[in-house]
Amino acid sequence: MSHPLFEKHRATLDAALHAIATRGYWSPYSEMPSPKVYGETAAADGKAAYEAHVGHPFELDQPGQLGWTGAEASPYGVALDVKYPLCDHEALVQAGQVAMTGWQAVGAEGRTGICLEILYRLNKQSFEIGHAVMMTTGQGWMMAFQAGAPHAQDRGLEAVTYAWREQSFVPKEAVWEKPQGKNPALVMKKNFEIVGRGVGLVVGCGTFPTWNTYPGLFAALATGNAVIIKPHSNAVLPAAITVRTIRAVLSENGIDPNLVTMCVTDKRSTTQALATHSSVKSVDFTGSNVFGSWLIEHCKQAQVYAELAGVNNIVIDSTDAYKAMLGNIAFTLSLYSGQMCTTSQAILVPAQGIETDEGHKSYDEVCADLGKAIERFLSKPEVAFAVLGAMQSSATAERVDLANSGKLGQVILASQKLNNPEFNGADVRTPVLLACDATDEAAYMEERFGPISFIVKTADTQAAIALSERIVQTHGALTVGLYSTSDDVIQAMTQATWRGKVALSINLTSGVFVNQSSAFSDYHGTGGNPSANASYADSAFVANRFRVVQRRAHV
Amino acid sequence: MSHPLFEKHRATLDAALHAIATRGYWSPYSEMPSPKVYGETAAADGKAAYEAHVGHPFELDQPGQLGWTGAEASPYGVALDVKYPLCDHEALVQAGQVAMTGWQAVGAEGRTGICLEILYRLNKQSFEIGHAVMMTTGQGWMMAFQAGAPHAQDRGLEAVTYAWREQSFVPKEAVWEKPQGKNPALVMKKNFEIVGRGVGLVVGCGTFPTWNTYPGLFAALATGNAVIIKPHSNAVLPAAITVRTIRAVLSENGIDPNLVTMCVTDKRSTTQALATHSSVKSVDFTGSNVFGSWLIEHCKQAQVYAELAGVNNIVIDSTDAYKAMLGNIAFTLSLYSGQMCTTSQAILVPAQGIETDEGHKSYDEVCADLGKAIERFLSKPEVAFAVLGAMQSSATAERVDLANSGKLGQVILASQKLNNPEFNGADVRTPVLLACDATDEAAYMEERFGPISFIVKTADTQAAIALSERIVQTHGALTVGLYSTSDDVIQAMTQATWRGKVALSINLTSGVFVNQSSAFSDYHGTGGNPSANASYADSAFVANRFRVVQRRAHV
Repeated sequence: MSHPLFEKHRATLDAALHAIATRGYWSPYSEMPSPKVYGETAAADGKAAYEAHVGHPFELDQPGQLGWTGAEASPYGVALDVKYPLCDHEALVQAGQVAMTGWQAVGAEGRTGICLEILYRLNKQSFEIGHAVMMTTGQGWMMAFQAGAPHAQDRGLEAVTYAWREQSFVPKEAVWEKPQGKNPALVMKKNFEIVGRGVGLVVGCGTFPTWNTYPGLFAALATGNAVIIKPHSNAVLPAAITVRTIRAVLSENGIDPNLVTMCVTDKRSTTQALATHSSVKSVDFTGSNVFGSWLIEHCKQAQVYAELAGVNNIVIDSTDAYKAMLGNIAFTLSLYSGQMCTTSQAILVPAQGIETDEGHKSYDEVCADLGKAIERFLSKPEVAFAVLGAMQSSATAERVDLANSGKLGQVILASQKLNNPEFNGADVRTPVLLACDATDEAAYMEERFGPISFIVKTADTQAAIALSERIVQTHGALTVGLYSTSDDVIQAMTQATWRGKVALSINLTSGVFVNQSSAFSDYHGTGGNPSANASYADSAFVANRFRVVQRRAHV
Repeated sequence: MSHPLFEKHRATLDAALHAIATRGYWSPYSEMPSPKVYGETAAADGKAAYEAHVGHPFELDQPGQLGWTGAEASPYGVALDVKYPLCDHEALVQAGQVAMTGWQAVGAEGRTGICLEILYRLNKQSFEIGHAVMMTTGQGWMMAFQAGAPHAQDRGLEAVTYAWREQSFVPKEAVWEKPQGKNPALVMKKNFEIVGRGVGLVVGCGTFPTWNTYPGLFAALATGNAVIIKPHSNAVLPAAITVRTIRAVLSENGIDPNLVTMCVTDKRSTTQALATHSSVKSVDFTGSNVFGSWLIEHCKQAQVYAELAGVNNIVIDSTDAYKAMLGNIAFTLSLYSGQMCTTSQAILVPAQGIETDEGHKSYDEVCADLGKAIERFLSKPEVAFAVLGAMQSSATAERVDLANSGKLGQVILASQKLNNPEFNGADVRTPVLLACDATDEAAYMEERFGPISFIVKTADTQAAIALSERIVQTHGALTVGLYSTSDDVIQAMTQATWRGKVALSINLTSGVFVNQSSAFSDYHGTGGNPSANASYADSAFVANRFRVVQRRAHV
């Protein structure tokens, strides 16, 4: 008999299975914050729910609580003043391990059903989570709602779906009957038990506290593991809301809620102790190369799934839609002030310029026109504030200042500080655009996270493609773009991205952007270049998170 | 249009897909060396083919050949005197990389079809390979034929089947159509390319040069990678025959044969240089903890799939078939003189003895009776020689001498040296059986590879189960056995093996043995304890060997 929640959400699961097999467009969670979908009072209720957290301790009833901690500083300059349980990490690990026994016993169908219910419930909280994401990350509202809630839920569901598919391949039992010629066959009954590897640690980032956390969280959870979420110290609230809901759904279904806990700490040593704990068997990480490399180096006892830095790039060879191309790139560079792991940093343009539907454009013209396109796009303040959001960290703002100084390259478009009247404390910056030569590798060939991009002058298109490939192979990239009207160039770039193992977007001119990745269709990262050692979400992201333990006996 | 070899072998593939989904008994390769299956002249032809290799250089036409090398010493004491190409390993890596482009282009169906054809052709060479395995490893003939040829082919096919299933989930292309309310939908065409990670290195072992090599070889190959086989320096011939056949099938199908090469070396530094080469992206290894740990430590650029040492064990609580139990264990300890990674080393027996269908048996009686069962089983010389084979290495023989000396425990049954009249040079040893206390951990709690087993006295059954679990968790095990008539004990042991993540065989008394693993049904290793970080063969064994690189463009 199936688990009731598996039955309840079976239609969603079936549609998700179809989606991962065909990878067209699909989502069960509306990305429009519409009253028709979410309910007439959802927006107000969600905002009120968010506001109710502000200024209060956030109870989670976790084991090993030692006190309260937390000091998130909103990039919008508003006071949050939420405190979170400070728990002994050893107690969280032990409680997670204990809870795994019941989680194993409920089986793959039970786990999948409960995970689907969790996502269903999180979807109902989309406004609350959207506000929490906005206020902790500095994203604009629409992005915070979409990326923070439905799109993150999509990625969680995608992981659950892959996890279910792989687990469903393991039969619960089998009869093995081997013929023995004229003698009776040898007959054995075999049982196959799916067992989680152990406690999974999911280390969140400050910019996308749900979108980058849900894949690892749900991949580990659905495959039978306990999960401890270690949120970024400046983006705890979205994780806390998520963990509370998960614990509630677990409890309602007879599962020990300590299966999923949150470990808030700003001590790196605590995170390191957790990540190298002998009972922690997987670590999902999004963040800097420094700590990511430390994890890969030191977490011998765990599988590490890491998304690190990269140098995303675009090759411009030619276009038959010059204005639309510039507009498309301008949007990409502006969205959330370029504080996305998928934002393009290096735009490679041949020295002799490019052919377009508006005639030949010199390298300098391309530089100037892209600068103007960004200015034009951000000319209306309401658009600018909605798109740019705010600086998530002072380190990013300092990188913008450095770029503005001209020390990294010739300033085509300087970043401007804007004053958002709604949020006086917000540090709002427009993109800075620099021009440099391909030889100026020290400038553009490392990740400069934030709204900082380089238009890199290359000898010709061939050199641009070769440079793009070298950047990907040596520094990694999550996204690469190409603009070209030549089939030969498209073919050459395609092959370069096969070798470099990076996703390629070709001639984007309308409402799709190189920095956007659509769940169930786009693989986020390939796991094959230095920017990430795994992809969200594919079979490899889930298949090694559980093991099959068999037993056999004569019938 | 499908690849012709995919069509040719589609029925085999479909049956294999059914087998991995149901995990009952199945094999397309007959394990009986029967003229009815393999042809009237197959046995003679195969032996002749093997003999034709003896005393001759083994041509492979590989790039970068510097000379000839090889000095296998047959455990049967016969002269082999085969020389193999000594090739610059850098040339092999580069040639493999070059060959990968065409291998990628033939697609998953083409790769799968060609791999199935390779296995089909290797199956026709089963007698030749069986003799090569026998003479290089010291296995008895029947085992060398079965484990060296059809069973190894089964494991190779199993890996190809998992690899095909995972690759078949990736659609070649998709149309992504996202509704935009009243506006026209956004429509993109997406292409998904399966790209191998890079060159795969497969490091073979001296005891099972095909059975332990084919899973990694075919998993890496089928998923789009080049493969370099580094055989054990004393078991090159089976790998050489395999590589020659693969290269022939590749060439016949328009694929650069340098996709698969053999790197013969007895220099550890060469293997290390290969394993850490920046273009080598996977390493499959079977062997010692020392080198396995070195690989895991140093091969940062590659996925390492390692089968290492363990301490396999059996808990005896009670039985209703005492004689059959003793006979079953006696066979396990004797087969190939215990030189299997799955042979039981520690047999845990309660101090107060056990209940049996022949009445109570004290600990001492169990010790004595198992010793007698081994003596009885090996009392006929023709059986003894066929089952025991010969010592594969002098290090194993030395371990037997040490055990015989009584320094590791009280000798219940001393190992005897037998003289095989057919092979005067063979070092044939019967099993040595020792008694010791559970506290004598220094004796039994490390792998003592070879025909050396301990009957470990534990306080009671509960202590035996706890000790078994601790052995598995700290030292690893590929196999655990249990004899008990109590459901409670079976349940307790089952849960212990779930926690320790090791396969359990319960009350084996007939023609199935704890040290045997049946392809398509038994997972070999769980990948969840220190004896192996991966299992043959499951989705996790293949899913991370390829990456998906997408491109997308507006329609």
